[in-house]
Amino acid sequence: MSFRATCLTLFPEAFPGVLGVSIVGNALRQGIWELDAVDIRTFGLGRHRTVDDTPSGGGAGMVMRADVAAAAIDSVEQAGRPRIYLSPRGRPLDQKRVRELAAGPGVILLCGRFEGLDERVIEARGLEEVSVGDFVLAGGEVAAQALLEACVRLLPGVAGNAESLADESFEAGLLEHPHYTRPQVWDEREIPAVLTSGDHAKVAAWRRNQAEELTKARRPDLYAAFREASPQQGKAAKPRD
Amino acid sequence: MSFRATCLTLFPEAFPGVLGVSIVGNALRQGIWELDAVDIRTFGLGRHRTVDDTPSGGGAGMVMRADVAAAAIDSVEQAGRPRIYLSPRGRPLDQKRVRELAAGPGVILLCGRFEGLDERVIEARGLEEVSVGDFVLAGGEVAAQALLEACVRLLPGVAGNAESLADESFEAGLLEHPHYTRPQVWDEREIPAVLTSGDHAKVAAWRRNQAEELTKARRPDLYAAFREASPQQGKAAKPRD
Repeated sequence: MSFRATCLTLFPEAFPGVLGVSIVGNALRQGIWELDAVDIRTFGLGRHRTVDDTPSGGGAGMVMRADVAAAAIDSVEQAGRPRIYLSPRGRPLDQKRVRELAAGPGVILLCGRFEGLDERVIEARGLEEVSVGDFVLAGGEVAAQALLEACVRLLPGVAGNAESLADESFEAGLLEHPHYTRPQVWDEREIPAVLTSGDHAKVAAWRRNQAEELTKARRPDLYAAFREASPQQGKAAKPRD
Repeated sequence: MSFRATCLTLFPEAFPGVLGVSIVGNALRQGIWELDAVDIRTFGLGRHRTVDDTPSGGGAGMVMRADVAAAAIDSVEQAGRPRIYLSPRGRPLDQKRVRELAAGPGVILLCGRFEGLDERVIEARGLEEVSVGDFVLAGGEVAAQALLEACVRLLPGVAGNAESLADESFEAGLLEHPHYTRPQVWDEREIPAVLTSGDHAKVAAWRRNQAEELTKARRPDLYAAFREASPQQGKAAKPRD
């Protein structure tokens, strides 16, 4: 069974978009995952296929109707897939949730446009509100694509090298250490000597230390969670090798 | 002067992608903003246009070379634009930074692929590392598109209604209140009576209270920052009307 993604959107032409290129696009063409874009407009009301209306209580913008959104959701084979509404009000997406989703049968993603979505359909259809960050988009489509790209790259057979997945940012609760490659000297800057020493234990210790220092400096929130989750892995501990 | 976005990428065909639809796509066609996708491969070395090499110190994956990335960056007219590298190690993008970027001349966005980018080019070219969330993508392209969509919708003439921009999530440091629209009863669920009362002050107070309660429940981090920034705007204060 491949991973099935269904995106409910007013702009089906936005798909696959960036999901059509590189390893994620190759995996789509290989059938490792499936992507359907369902046009919400199809479920619109009346001759004009109306999908929105003015907000109750007044104010700017338009709100997507509960009946229309529900009809679009209900038209899709659910197959035990989580129903996710991309929204800045949602729980911030993190790598843990990405791993959970990637391990499941797929996702149904509702991409909002306009001012918002009638709250009642969120409750009635048990939509999980997910945010990709503390900023506001014009619609949920690019957020859906980010979520899908993050999931699909974890599917077996998609990334070239499973080892590089284990090593990257967030997998150990830390930001990733700096990377270097040839040339040895560039712009009068040398690759740190330890990396060309051939001493694998020293390289591992240096990388671990760099990852901890970077996380501490840039993301004290992540660093605190990391220390809490694995106090024995603090700076005093020996690095894994 | 319109807002200029230059994306340095190994997959120029991923653009405009989602940026070609809806209000952001219309604004692109109207010349309110400009988008160039520059193919990093053009700056690759030798007959195979090589852009990457194995990581110093060993390990999985490939690293984008500093000389190649620098050549791509240097090929672009800078015009005072910030140079941003999309990376999960970066500072999380927020609506404040989006507003700053949207108020400027544009952005130069370096989209990474592979395991990472040689650290020396980040230092030498003063790249600002920006993350769209605590998850790992296959490349920076979808993150660049999210950043650009967030910026472009704030440009004058892009969104239909300036008022709706002022009202939304994060603009007041809070998540947005719930929305409702017709029908009055759907799935045996009614629109909250206050919203159809016609009492504008009560509607405003209800929305404000909902926004605070939602933020407190879902995002204690944002709520703490909100209370710190505006202690007089706590629950005891009268709502703005």
